[in-house]
Amino acid sequence: MKSNEYYIKEALKEAKKAYLIDEVPVGCVIVHNDKIIARGYNKRETLNSSLAHAEIIAIKKACKKLNSWRLEECIMYITLEPCVMCAGAIIQARIPEVYYGAYDYRFGAHISKTNLFDLQLNHSVKINGGILEDECKNLISQFFKELRVKKLENNE
Amino acid sequence: MKSNEYYIKEALKEAKKAYLIDEVPVGCVIVHNDKIIARGYNKRETLNSSLAHAEIIAIKKACKKLNSWRLEECIMYITLEPCVMCAGAIIQARIPEVYYGAYDYRFGAHISKTNLFDLQLNHSVKINGGILEDECKNLISQFFKELRVKKLENNE
Repeated sequence: MKSNEYYIKEALKEAKKAYLIDEVPVGCVIVHNDKIIARGYNKRETLNSSLAHAEIIAIKKACKKLNSWRLEECIMYITLEPCVMCAGAIIQARIPEVYYGAYDYRFGAHISKTNLFDLQLNHSVKINGGILEDECKNLISQFFKELRVKKLENNE
Repeated sequence: MKSNEYYIKEALKEAKKAYLIDEVPVGCVIVHNDKIIARGYNKRETLNSSLAHAEIIAIKKACKKLNSWRLEECIMYITLEPCVMCAGAIIQARIPEVYYGAYDYRFGAHISKTNLFDLQLNHSVKINGGILEDECKNLISQFFKELRVKKLENNE
């Protein structure tokens, strides 16, 4: 069985794809029986869809792959703490286990802004952050740093 | 300008489509410049996708229609209080105004189980429930009543 770090690295590969197309670099993989069955990276701007977060894209693919809306035997790996929408999507999909890299101090729905996983809804999720945190965090920091420079240049 | 009740009735038409295909009857419409630009009804079982709530389907269509991930000039009408995932999706899409019919005492993310709209995220939403509440509630109650009867019959 591969380590959590291994799969977070795979999620980072997805995040880097987002980075290359100027999207906020967040990536996600969903694992079933120790195999990656779905991958996703943020495509909000590319697809012009507010729903196109890495997690939502990966959940859609995993449901299709398993031909089920219940992902009860899956583990999700994300480079960033999920937002409210994605935390809700994880609960709706009945994903039992989630690992992520960086914390999202502004919008994170596990620890940072709120904890939706403690709400006692109809499904409980084991969730842990901070895996390869620096690597995940640095990619996002780099993205926003470059974005600020671009904005400054455009205003010159 | 049409009334909120008018649009909730339109959302109810969507919910009835879900009812007819044995899905939990929840419907949604999204209005822009006093015109319905997107409709959705719950298709979780039909599409085998945990994401296929009425609101998510309608948001996807509205983003496509307006060619934008920002639905900043839209109003959403739903027959049921949104769940955590859909409340998050509403916030992500920057929808400024939402009206719904019945309260969801088990999973509602506006009043019933939690209030995600009070979290002070990056977008604030004006949201009100209880519009044509009885009509919206009765459709769902009827659905679950029939489901229980079916289950009993199958166990006989």
